Amino acid sequence: MNIDKYSFDEFKQLAERFHGYAAPGLLLGGYMVALAKRRLPEGTLFEAVSETSKCLPDAVQMLSLCSMGNNWLKVRKLGRYAVTLYDKFTGRGVRVGVSLERLRKWPEYYGWLMKLKPKKEQDTARLMQEIEEAGDSICTVQDVIVFPELLGRKKSFQVSICPGCGEGYPTADGPVCRASQGEGYFHLDSGHDEKLQDLSRVCVVPAEESAGKKLAQGMTGIVPGESKDHISVDPART
Amino acid sequence: MNIDKYSFDEFKQLAERFHGYAAPGLLLGGYMVALAKRRLPEGTLFEAVSETSKCLPDAVQMLSLCSMGNNWLKVRKLGRYAVTLYDKFTGRGVRVGVSLERLRKWPEYYGWLMKLKPKKEQDTARLMQEIEEAGDSICTVQDVIVFPELLGRKKSFQVSICPGCGEGYPTADGPVCRASQGEGYFHLDSGHDEKLQDLSRVCVVPAEESAGKKLAQGMTGIVPGESKDHISVDPART
Repeated sequence: MNIDKYSFDEFKQLAERFHGYAAPGLLLGGYMVALAKRRLPEGTLFEAVSETSKCLPDAVQMLSLCSMGNNWLKVRKLGRYAVTLYDKFTGRGVRVGVSLERLRKWPEYYGWLMKLKPKKEQDTARLMQEIEEAGDSICTVQDVIVFPELLGRKKSFQVSICPGCGEGYPTADGPVCRASQGEGYFHLDSGHDEKLQDLSRVCVVPAEESAGKKLAQGMTGIVPGESKDHISVDPART
Repeated sequence: MNIDKYSFDEFKQLAERFHGYAAPGLLLGGYMVALAKRRLPEGTLFEAVSETSKCLPDAVQMLSLCSMGNNWLKVRKLGRYAVTLYDKFTGRGVRVGVSLERLRKWPEYYGWLMKLKPKKEQDTARLMQEIEEAGDSICTVQDVIVFPELLGRKKSFQVSICPGCGEGYPTADGPVCRASQGEGYFHLDSGHDEKLQDLSRVCVVPAEESAGKKLAQGMTGIVPGESKDHISVDPART
C-alpha cells in the first residue's frame, strides 16, 4: 500500500535522501503518519507529537509541514512508538500507535520492534517485505484531546548580550547564558577561535567565593541581604 | 551569496516547503550551516548540535543528512543562535555563531535577532534584503572539540510490553511505560478509542497504598524487604 502520496519504493528513496537510509522505523512511521493524516478532518491545521525521538519524527517531517525548527512537531520521549496529530486550535486529534497483538502475525517485524535479536541476525529483506505487506493494518487509532499546554504560541522573549560569550541569549536564563553557566558541550580547539576563548571561562559563582575574581557585569544596585538574579549573597557576610 | 548549492531565492522556496515559510532565522541558519560545512575537511562524516530549537535545526536538516529522527542532529537548548558540525568519530568540528558586533551594521537584522521591536513593526522586505546582503559575513567561526558524550552510538535497549497501555516501551523505564507513569500529554476523546481506555488509568503506587487495588502485573518473586524495580515496599510492613 502507498505511504501518503508515495509508493513504498518512492518513500524508501525519500527516506534515504532525508534520513540517510530507509530505516524500518521510518517506513513504519510513514504508514502511521499517513494514517493519522487521513483520519483528521480535511483542511485541519495540525501540529504533531512524536512519543519517541527515533525515526518517527522524520516521518512527520517528511509527510507534513510540522518540523522541529518551526515547533509544530514536538518530541515527548515516552519511549512508545506512537504519534499524535492534532488540531492546533482545539487540541482534538488522532493518536496512532502499534498493536503488538496484530504485529505478531509478522515474525520478523515483531522481532525487530521488540528487539528480540541482534541487528546482524536480522533478515532485512524479509523485514522490508513484512513492513510493506503489513502497511497500516498493525496500527491502533485513538481519538484524543491533547493537554492545553500544547496549544497556543509561546510568548516572545527578551534577548540580552551574554558578558560571558558575547552572544545573544534569552534574558530570562540569568545574568549569563546557559552555556556560560556550565551547560556547554564543547571546548575550544587549540586557539583557532576568534577571541572568545578568554570569555568562555566566565562562570557564575556565589558572592562569597568571588573575592579577587574578575567581574563580568556591573554590580551596582545590589541591595545588601537581597539577591540579584542568580547571584546569591551569603547573609552572614552582609 | 548562495546558501550551499542554492541561490537565496531557491533556499527561500525550499524553506517554504519544509518549514512552512521562509523564516528569517532559517535563512540565517542556512548561511551558518553552509559555512560550517565548507570549513569541515572534505568527506568528513559529521553530526550536528543546534544550540536553539528555533528554526536553526531545520537549516541543518535541509542542508545535511543530520536529522532529528536519525539522531545525527541534537538540540541543546542553550538559547544561543549557533550550530556545531563535528566529525562523528573524533569530535573535532566547527561552531558557527553570530557576531553581534558585525550584525550592528544591519539595523533591521540586528533589531530582529535582538527582538528590539514587535513583529508587526518589522520591515520584512528590508530584513530579507539585509539577510541576503549580509550573507555569512556576520558569522563567527570557532574550531571546537565536542565532549565525548556526543560521540558513539547509544547501546540498543530491551523492550517490554507495558501492562498499562499494552504498547512496547524501553524496559529500563520501569514496570510500566513513562506515559502510564503520568507523563502523558493527552486524554482520550469520548470513547472513540480501541479498548485501551480502561488500561490507560493504570498507575504506579507505593505498595502501602495498593491494598484493595487491581494489580496490573504479577508480583510473584518479590523478596520481602527488597524492592522490585520501581515498586517500593514499606520496611515497616515486611
